[in-house]
Amino acid sequence: MNAAVLAVGSELVAGLRQDGNGDWLIRRLADLGVETCWRARVEDDPGKIAGLVRRGLGDAAAVILTGGLGPTEDDRTREALALALDAPLARDPAMAETIVAMFTARGRTAGAGQAKQADRPSGAAWIANPVGSAPGILAERDGKLVVALPGVPEEMRAMFDRSVAPRLTAGVGRSIARTTLRIAGRPESYVDERVRDLYAAEGTETTILASSGTVELLLTARAADPEEARRRVDALADAMRARLGRDVFGTGNDTLAAVVGSLCLRRGATVAGAESCTGGLLGAALTDVPGSSAWFRGALVCYANDVKTSLAGVSADLIEAHGAVSEPVARALAAGARRVFGADFGLGITGVAGPTGGSLEKPVGTVHVALDDGGAGRAVHSNWPGERGVIRRRAVAVALDLLRRRLLD
Amino acid sequence: MNAAVLAVGSELVAGLRQDGNGDWLIRRLADLGVETCWRARVEDDPGKIAGLVRRGLGDAAAVILTGGLGPTEDDRTREALALALDAPLARDPAMAETIVAMFTARGRTAGAGQAKQADRPSGAAWIANPVGSAPGILAERDGKLVVALPGVPEEMRAMFDRSVAPRLTAGVGRSIARTTLRIAGRPESYVDERVRDLYAAEGTETTILASSGTVELLLTARAADPEEARRRVDALADAMRARLGRDVFGTGNDTLAAVVGSLCLRRGATVAGAESCTGGLLGAALTDVPGSSAWFRGALVCYANDVKTSLAGVSADLIEAHGAVSEPVARALAAGARRVFGADFGLGITGVAGPTGGSLEKPVGTVHVALDDGGAGRAVHSNWPGERGVIRRRAVAVALDLLRRRLLD
Repeated sequence: MNAAVLAVGSELVAGLRQDGNGDWLIRRLADLGVETCWRARVEDDPGKIAGLVRRGLGDAAAVILTGGLGPTEDDRTREALALALDAPLARDPAMAETIVAMFTARGRTAGAGQAKQADRPSGAAWIANPVGSAPGILAERDGKLVVALPGVPEEMRAMFDRSVAPRLTAGVGRSIARTTLRIAGRPESYVDERVRDLYAAEGTETTILASSGTVELLLTARAADPEEARRRVDALADAMRARLGRDVFGTGNDTLAAVVGSLCLRRGATVAGAESCTGGLLGAALTDVPGSSAWFRGALVCYANDVKTSLAGVSADLIEAHGAVSEPVARALAAGARRVFGADFGLGITGVAGPTGGSLEKPVGTVHVALDDGGAGRAVHSNWPGERGVIRRRAVAVALDLLRRRLLD
Repeated sequence: MNAAVLAVGSELVAGLRQDGNGDWLIRRLADLGVETCWRARVEDDPGKIAGLVRRGLGDAAAVILTGGLGPTEDDRTREALALALDAPLARDPAMAETIVAMFTARGRTAGAGQAKQADRPSGAAWIANPVGSAPGILAERDGKLVVALPGVPEEMRAMFDRSVAPRLTAGVGRSIARTTLRIAGRPESYVDERVRDLYAAEGTETTILASSGTVELLLTARAADPEEARRRVDALADAMRARLGRDVFGTGNDTLAAVVGSLCLRRGATVAGAESCTGGLLGAALTDVPGSSAWFRGALVCYANDVKTSLAGVSADLIEAHGAVSEPVARALAAGARRVFGADFGLGITGVAGPTGGSLEKPVGTVHVALDDGGAGRAVHSNWPGERGVIRRRAVAVALDLLRRRLLD
């Protein structure tokens, strides 16, 4: 089973808004074992929408549209469906009454726009909207399905789950299983080399992606039987885990910060940070985890050198001798964070995030990260190219991974 | 003039990667006065790619593809073009030699995959790739243009600007002009109400968008003559500015933090922060501006209450009397930041970001922001619903806007 997904709205085409509905639908379809063969964003033009619906009926077993079912002038999806299906629009008196009643109940008056919402191509069925006023439309053509849902995310999601998903899975085995392995502290090329020969495992597909200091392995297995698909993807994930060991920090949507938080909770440990080039991003990542107040004490953003000295207790001589971007200063920042906040672990970050400030000896991208645990601690030095934002996010990932590995010991 | 944009790659359809090439192309096309009628992401399937290319030729004057021109097995765009144009692939011996020579010059050997890159539909022309090895393909059909570019962003961008843009604009007046006004400190509904009657200005279109505490007005003007289009959009922008005054903080891609930075530089002022619920996001936003060390001193991330006291000097009695989320505590945090860092201005943020920790009196979304300037200072109290990330980003926008307005006085 496959589908084409079509998001209607000129503002989506213009790239002004991300196609969040499309992203959501594609993942939900995948969970149901339905593959998406293409997805498109199209402007509010009935002819162009209809053309793509017809193309979708040629390519896929189902075409799913979102948007353009509202009451305003630029809501043209109803007309487009009529064109695509070659079935004229007809007003459904029962639905018209329902809409008027819904407005009356809220003390409002339904206008001409609302009346339009009771139009559907002849032969099509309604999809009830449990959340808002715009009903969805469902039509069949040569055993294929055309589904139109509103663009309001809450309405679209509720209607898809309640009325569309059961139709799509009726009689179709769930034949796809997926897992994501998340890896930190290693470059993409290293991960690729370690597991590459496993990509050939029967009935599976692996995609490798890298972003901001972490690597993802996206594993997909296909089989006629859903349990067989699950077994295959699990076996592949296990084989990869065996190769990568502690480099795997999580699965699915796990974040490094959330994993660090769980480990802290389990060990009753607390954390604090002192950040220079990341400017607060480490604290922001840690406090992005709900409930982080149980294990995160706080952070110092020491952007100016004199602040590193006055607040984090990094001696001016040390900065003078090694430069602000150096391992000794990263270690002193980590120690300062631990002391100032009375935490079990302190993290220190200093680096050259660019675009200026680099030198031959310390080019843009040079980052020193240190962990202070009251003992020998740890330090990592890295130098990646990239733009300012990338360098900063990677530095945070390195710091979090340093702490994660220490907490696992 | 209009275009359809098609990004090829199964990983794009699966929603695993954002369609960055499509985003870039659509903006570039708009700058050239070319509207995009639809954009799609399609899996590596020649039949489906070809179907959408044909659909694009029906809907638009140009179809622009990215991706699928590499040397590997799943690079199928060449085959798809042959299908769509009904023109068999033919190997170009001159291009084959060029590719072999390119590899030899780098001490490598071209394989069968590279040889494939010298295939193009008969009658099509090459687009030179100044950056990498995959050439692009340009074909004409009934006065319409089909363009295929590689998926590597640097290559795609260079080739588009060098070889495709001149073709698209040849004989076409640049008839679109755009401007974006960026607004802070006001909800979308307020902005909409203030300027709504201007939306009707001749030959213009206005889109209003809200995100994370700021509002954007996207203004587009169309005219046969490019200067007339520019004049129209500038007149509309001026009329809106007159209504909104200081609520407009910038244009184009200006960020609040960058605007605050410019104002600080101009006034020789320095800033510091003390953040609770935002956990470092304020510092991260300010240090996202290159060169921020000239005016940003640093920040305290005071997540735990005892840290608010020990580090930022917020008295425990004050916290006891008003609660950690209160205007007096926000003011004390701001004062603490200003004092600790010796800055001209201190910003304090405290709030309930959720998902837990809310109460009847202080529900999730309650945020207090204060500015200390050594005088009376300022404070703002807000309460928006939303999820944790949204509440935190909005709190940062409120803090930055508070400082921006103070710096304008």
